[in-house]
Amino acid sequence: MTAVSKAVILAVGSEMLSPTRQDTNSLYITDVLNQLGIAVAYKSVVADNLAELQAQIHHAVSRHHVLIITGGLGPTDDDLTREAVAGQLGLPLREDAGLVDVIRARFAARGIPMPEVNRRQAQVPEGATVLHNPRGSAPGLLIDWAGAVIAALPGPPREMQPMMNGPVRERLAAFAGGVRLMRRILRVAGRSESRVEELAQPVYSAWLKEAPPIETTILATPGFIELHLSTQVTREAEGAAALAAAVGQLEGRLGADIVSTDGQTVEQVVGDMLRARTWRIALAESCTGGLAASRLTDVAGSSDYVERGYVVYSNRAKTELLGVPDALIAEHGAVSEPVARAMADGALAHAAADVAVAITGIAGPGGGTEDKPVGTVWMAVALASPRETRTLRCRFLGSRELIKTFAAVTALDLVRRRLLDADWDLDWARR
Amino acid sequence: MTAVSKAVILAVGSEMLSPTRQDTNSLYITDVLNQLGIAVAYKSVVADNLAELQAQIHHAVSRHHVLIITGGLGPTDDDLTREAVAGQLGLPLREDAGLVDVIRARFAARGIPMPEVNRRQAQVPEGATVLHNPRGSAPGLLIDWAGAVIAALPGPPREMQPMMNGPVRERLAAFAGGVRLMRRILRVAGRSESRVEELAQPVYSAWLKEAPPIETTILATPGFIELHLSTQVTREAEGAAALAAAVGQLEGRLGADIVSTDGQTVEQVVGDMLRARTWRIALAESCTGGLAASRLTDVAGSSDYVERGYVVYSNRAKTELLGVPDALIAEHGAVSEPVARAMADGALAHAAADVAVAITGIAGPGGGTEDKPVGTVWMAVALASPRETRTLRCRFLGSRELIKTFAAVTALDLVRRRLLDADWDLDWARR
Repeated sequence: MTAVSKAVILAVGSEMLSPTRQDTNSLYITDVLNQLGIAVAYKSVVADNLAELQAQIHHAVSRHHVLIITGGLGPTDDDLTREAVAGQLGLPLREDAGLVDVIRARFAARGIPMPEVNRRQAQVPEGATVLHNPRGSAPGLLIDWAGAVIAALPGPPREMQPMMNGPVRERLAAFAGGVRLMRRILRVAGRSESRVEELAQPVYSAWLKEAPPIETTILATPGFIELHLSTQVTREAEGAAALAAAVGQLEGRLGADIVSTDGQTVEQVVGDMLRARTWRIALAESCTGGLAASRLTDVAGSSDYVERGYVVYSNRAKTELLGVPDALIAEHGAVSEPVARAMADGALAHAAADVAVAITGIAGPGGGTEDKPVGTVWMAVALASPRETRTLRCRFLGSRELIKTFAAVTALDLVRRRLLDADWDLDWARR
Repeated sequence: MTAVSKAVILAVGSEMLSPTRQDTNSLYITDVLNQLGIAVAYKSVVADNLAELQAQIHHAVSRHHVLIITGGLGPTDDDLTREAVAGQLGLPLREDAGLVDVIRARFAARGIPMPEVNRRQAQVPEGATVLHNPRGSAPGLLIDWAGAVIAALPGPPREMQPMMNGPVRERLAAFAGGVRLMRRILRVAGRSESRVEELAQPVYSAWLKEAPPIETTILATPGFIELHLSTQVTREAEGAAALAAAVGQLEGRLGADIVSTDGQTVEQVVGDMLRARTWRIALAESCTGGLAASRLTDVAGSSDYVERGYVVYSNRAKTELLGVPDALIAEHGAVSEPVARAMADGALAHAAADVAVAITGIAGPGGGTEDKPVGTVWMAVALASPRETRTLRCRFLGSRELIKTFAAVTALDLVRRRLLDADWDLDWARR
């Protein structure tokens, strides 16, 4: 069962050809297309230039049967998508009187007369279906042309997305013949990409020959390795069962290194575990500067289980707030096993918490030594009951921001492992 | 003075056509091209498919004179850039014996025999210049063909960037005839994009008619509006002087709302101000959960001025750590002017700091009321000398994560304004 058609995505707008801006609409559009079993052959970002845009439309429709264009539907002279589509496909452009009324009414509702320039947005290529836009003045266009489906959608994501996931998706579903792409995302912590590959590849390589075949891709994100499993099926139950069996096999290989099998973040997973136990957590952070607490509180409702955090950047703060003895810092240094342990124990003792996690390390770029190079981070997790504290030394590589991120998410992962009573044998710790 | 040539950028790799991955090489390449006065006509991401890739190369060289390709130079069957370039341009592909030796030596240095498959990386189209790759096994290629310059570079950014900014840049500089693009980036805080536009547009609109003309674009990022000024010149001193004069005019209009005129972040600017005074800062955060402290400690060397942070997520933490009276919280609510003030005063009193900043608000999506809707955030900045605390109520719109970001960077901006003794008349506060 393969994709019946391939698609081209075209984002129109010179501003997306600068060194600081990206097209992001294509990611959403790709997701919808893939769900229908339609792969993307290529995607382009093109300047607001009529000749360039028409050449792109020509290239796309001469090779493929699905073309999704975003942007260039505004009211100004820079907005050329209507003209380019109509001109390239040989469809006369005519003003749609009903559409003028819709746009005029939109302005009237805000007490503004419609600027004359907005009449341009009511120009419709002959035979095109108009996609109404409740969130903006630019209508979308859906065109059947010589066996191809062409959609022109507004650039703002909140205007584009309902059209793409609504009428365009419906039109393309017929095109795709009921094929549906289903996915599962596994998030793995504590392992290098090559180690995950080594463990998972013997399992997932066999899936390509099964029915339905499952494709697996590995993606490294800061702190995690993601396994993306996908399969194209016509019956949803068949796809769900195949993916569930595949996930089960990976769980057998990767065990507690798997943080989630449904795309959940480690902060969501830890949050759910804490809520289920009605436990509260305290954090004691040095080199991460509050990042672990911030990640944990990115989850809505996290006030149910986040008690407090101590950002003990100075040694004085470590001593005053957490009771870490001066002498301990003097003897072992602030980045050390005893200090990490004392920080976690101190947070647990001073806060009304059931679990505490501590992080102390060298984020760099300065401050490293031969014994404790940049990226060295000591972590500790303290439990109130049973009263026990475990520690781990990690070594992260990368920029200051990356080391902070690795340390923050690894600390949250250690809380997860401690609550599961899983092992702490992380690749980070072996460097 | 206009760009002498336009460029096309092609990123090769099916993995960049998924819903979760982006090509980012094109941003770096665009920056280098723009510095040479070369604009990008369009850019594409194309699957690992020989026919598709050749069609893209054909489209590019039939329209433009500069083509930069990244990716597809690895050793496997999926890596098709060499074949596609050679095939499309009609240049025979031959193994370069010297290059085989270079690749073999690279493996030997790691004590590994060269896998036979890596011989593919020594295939060179006739007439191409080989760009050596000290950071990987894939050499780059630079080709002069029918008046066009075509570069094929490896996909990993750390391998691609030295080639793009080295030999490719040198080759293109001759092409661009000594034209050079110069930029300044102004970061503005506390204002909506439309307000910045209203103030700045009368100033910058005149610059297009001056010599050298300066182009200005406005870009909204979370918490800031950026003004990007750019000019194309042949003499660097002329460009620098024109940009400095333009920046001076904007400073006249936007005053203390300008955080930086050289692209510095607010955390860098605040850090430099604190270091210059040898002041130390303490943070007291509720809804931002440590994000403001984390942003401040993203700057290398921030331990010089960051004393500590209190992530007082629970009311109990506010009382125990900062001495905020229970009764005050009971009377006014945790999100209120008196509580923000008491948090900042408490942080100042309990920490060895010269300035303290406090944040308490409703990040959402739940927890809002008619009086205090989601996005309501009270902030306070307390100084030790003169002993004074100022507060401000803001209202931010967006997702939970966006509200946290807005609140964290606005709090840092308020510290900046307080140290400058500048006004607190922010657009955020008027909603």
